[in-house]
Amino acid sequence: MNINRNYLNLHDSYLFSLIGKKVNEYKRQNPEKEVISLGIGDVTLPLPAAVTEAMSKAVSEMGNAATFRGYGEEQGYGFLRKAISGYYEKKGVDLDEKEIFVSDGAKSDLGNILDIFDVNNTVIIPDPVYPVYVDTNIMAGRKIVFIDGSAENGFLPMPDEGLYGDIVYICSPNNPTGAVYTKEQLKKWVDWALAREAVILFDSAYEAFIQDENLPTSIYQIDGAKYCAIEFCSFSKTAGFTGTRCGYTVVPKELERNGVSLNKLWLRRQTTKFNGVSYIVQRGAEAVFSKEGFKQVKKNINYYLENARIITEVLSQAGIWYTGGNNSPYIWLKCPDNMSSWEFFDVLLDKYNIVGTPGVGFGNNGEGFFRLTAFANRDIVLKAVERIRNGFSRF
Amino acid sequence: MNINRNYLNLHDSYLFSLIGKKVNEYKRQNPEKEVISLGIGDVTLPLPAAVTEAMSKAVSEMGNAATFRGYGEEQGYGFLRKAISGYYEKKGVDLDEKEIFVSDGAKSDLGNILDIFDVNNTVIIPDPVYPVYVDTNIMAGRKIVFIDGSAENGFLPMPDEGLYGDIVYICSPNNPTGAVYTKEQLKKWVDWALAREAVILFDSAYEAFIQDENLPTSIYQIDGAKYCAIEFCSFSKTAGFTGTRCGYTVVPKELERNGVSLNKLWLRRQTTKFNGVSYIVQRGAEAVFSKEGFKQVKKNINYYLENARIITEVLSQAGIWYTGGNNSPYIWLKCPDNMSSWEFFDVLLDKYNIVGTPGVGFGNNGEGFFRLTAFANRDIVLKAVERIRNGFSRF
Repeated sequence: MNINRNYLNLHDSYLFSLIGKKVNEYKRQNPEKEVISLGIGDVTLPLPAAVTEAMSKAVSEMGNAATFRGYGEEQGYGFLRKAISGYYEKKGVDLDEKEIFVSDGAKSDLGNILDIFDVNNTVIIPDPVYPVYVDTNIMAGRKIVFIDGSAENGFLPMPDEGLYGDIVYICSPNNPTGAVYTKEQLKKWVDWALAREAVILFDSAYEAFIQDENLPTSIYQIDGAKYCAIEFCSFSKTAGFTGTRCGYTVVPKELERNGVSLNKLWLRRQTTKFNGVSYIVQRGAEAVFSKEGFKQVKKNINYYLENARIITEVLSQAGIWYTGGNNSPYIWLKCPDNMSSWEFFDVLLDKYNIVGTPGVGFGNNGEGFFRLTAFANRDIVLKAVERIRNGFSRF
Repeated sequence: MNINRNYLNLHDSYLFSLIGKKVNEYKRQNPEKEVISLGIGDVTLPLPAAVTEAMSKAVSEMGNAATFRGYGEEQGYGFLRKAISGYYEKKGVDLDEKEIFVSDGAKSDLGNILDIFDVNNTVIIPDPVYPVYVDTNIMAGRKIVFIDGSAENGFLPMPDEGLYGDIVYICSPNNPTGAVYTKEQLKKWVDWALAREAVILFDSAYEAFIQDENLPTSIYQIDGAKYCAIEFCSFSKTAGFTGTRCGYTVVPKELERNGVSLNKLWLRRQTTKFNGVSYIVQRGAEAVFSKEGFKQVKKNINYYLENARIITEVLSQAGIWYTGGNNSPYIWLKCPDNMSSWEFFDVLLDKYNIVGTPGVGFGNNGEGFFRLTAFANRDIVLKAVERIRNGFSRF
C-alpha cells in the first residue's frame, strides 16, 4: 500500500497563519491600538432576503411528506440550471441546461475537473494567482509552466507563439490582482487554445463585479470558446454564498478532445463521485436570479464596489500604482518605496494598524505587491483610508 | 491535450434505465394494473422536525448581519464534529474532532479518498456491491480484484492467507445484500490488513439500521482498526438526508502508510479541493444528535425496519432464501425456481405488479438474486406482501 507521493511535493502555505501570528503579536504589544483589516477574502454582508425566503420555504418542504425531496440529479435540479441558462442568455450566451453542472462551489469543481484529463498534460498557470490551481496539479503530478504577470502587462499575461501547454487557467477578474481581460485579449487565448487543441479552464467567480460593459463576463462571449473552454462560476462572491456553498460549471457540448465529449466525461465524473447539492441551497441559488433577488444581490455588489472605489481613490492620491478595484473586489498595489510585500505588511500594520495580504503569498511575481480587499464594512474602509490619507507623506 | 483514457474503460450501467423501460412498457400494455415498487433505494419519510427547525434557524442567522457566516472550516464546523464524536463515544469509540471530516455525503468521500493513494495499488472489492467502488477505481486505472459473495458465505466474503491487495472495501450493513459482518469477522479483516499494511475503506452508511447489539456499528469497535481503516458514514439513510446532503469520514491519527499520516493527507486533499458543507445543512445534521432529533430519527428507522420485517416474514413463509432485512433496509433474496435475476424481475412485474431490483446489476455474483428495499410507505409494503402471499404457490 503506497500513498500518492505527489502530495509530498506540496508546499505548506504559511501566508495566512503568518499574518495571524504577526497581527496577534502586534496586538499583544499594543493593546491600545485598534487594528482593522482590509485583508478579508470573504463576504461580510448577510444573504439577500430573497435567498433566505426561498431557503426557508425549501426547509418547510423537506419537513413535509407531500413535498419532501430525496436524491436529486447529480448535475443539479432543472429549475436552477434553467435559471443559470437564463442568466447566460442575458450575456448573449446560448447554453443548453445539459451544459450546466451545479456543484457545492467553484473550488471543488476546479480541483475535480482535473480527474477527466490525462496526468501527462502540461498545465499553464499565471503567476501570481489563486494557489489552488497549483496545488491541485501538484497532487496529480502534472508538469506546471508558469506565465508571468507583471506591472508591465497589467498582470494579464498573454500567450505567444512559443507557449506550449495543454491546459491553461485563466481567472478574470483575477484573484488576487483584480485585473480583467478584455475581449480582444481573451480572443487571443481562445485562438491559441484552438490552434493547439488546448483547454482553457476559465474561472469567472468574480464576473458579477464587472461594471464595464465592454469587458467579457463569460468566456463564451468570445467566438470559438465553446470549442476550447470550460467555465467555473460561483454564488460565493456574487450572492454571499461562501458559507452556503453553491457554484456551477459549464462544459459545452461542442468541446471534444481525442474524439470524446468532455461534457460526457464530466457528467460521468459527477454522477459517480458526487451526489448533488442540497435541495434547500439550490432553491436559494435559484432566488438569486429572481427579479427581487437580482436587485438585492446587485445592491450588495455595489456596496463592495463603492468600498473598492474609496480605497483606490486614496491610492491614486498617494501616487501608488495599482490594478483592480473597478470591476473587482480586489485591489493589487505596488508596495511604495520598493518595499517587499512583507516589509509593506509590517509598515501598514505598525504605522497604520491596517492588515492586508502580502502579494508574494500568491506567487513569486507577487513579491513587491500587496492585496487589499473591498469586503470590509464601510466604516472600517473609511477609517482605513483616513489613516492612509493622513500618512500620505510617508509613501 | 489528452483526456483521462481510463474513463473509456467504464461500462455504462443500464440497470435502472432498463427497469424503467420495462415498467413503462408494462404499464402501457396494462393500464388497469396498479404497479407498486419495492425497489426504491431512497428514503421516503420527510426530515425530522428537529432537523428542519435547526435549519430554519440557521437560514435566519444567514440573513442577519450579526449572525451571518461566511467560509467555515473545510473539514466541518466544530459543533458538528463534536456531536459526531459524542455519537461515537456512545459506541465505545474515542475520536478526536480532528479525526472527523464533514462532507456533502459518503458517495463524494468514497470517490475522493482515492486521491491520496497511489494509482498502482491493487484494490479488493466484494461482488456484489455498490457499483461506485468499482467505477471510481476504473477511472483511476487501478487494478481491481473481486472477492466472492455467495449464499454459502452469506454474502460476507472473508480474507484468506493468499489474498493479496492494498485497499479493500467493506460495506456493512451491505448495499445491496443487507448482510452485516460480526465483530469476529471484522477482526479477521483488520488482522489481515494490519499484517499486509493494507487499508480498509469501511462504508458504514447503513449502521443506524443495526438492531442487534452484538453487531459492530463502527469498525473502530474492533481492536487495531484505527491503524488500518478509514470509515465513511452519512446522514442520508440515517436521517433522510439524501436530498439535504451531509456525511462524514473518519481518518484516525494512528493511521500511517509510508511513514505519512493519512489524516494529514486527507486534510490536505479536503482543504485544497473542497470548501466545506453549507452552514445550514451542518446545523440540521447537528440536530440529528439532539435528544429530540435522535428520538425522531430512531422512529423513522424503526418504520423502515418494520417494513423490512413484514417483507422478510412473507419470504420466510414462502420458503425463499434471503439475507438482510433485520439490521438493514435491504433484503436480498434468492430467486425462486432457479430463475435468473431478470426472469424473476419479469415474473414479479407481470404476475404481482411489483417492481424490484435484479441482483445481477450489482455484480456477476448477484445473478440469480434480487434486491427488495424497505423504503416504501407502509400501505405499499402491505399491498406487496399480500400479493406475494396470495401467489405463494407460484414459488
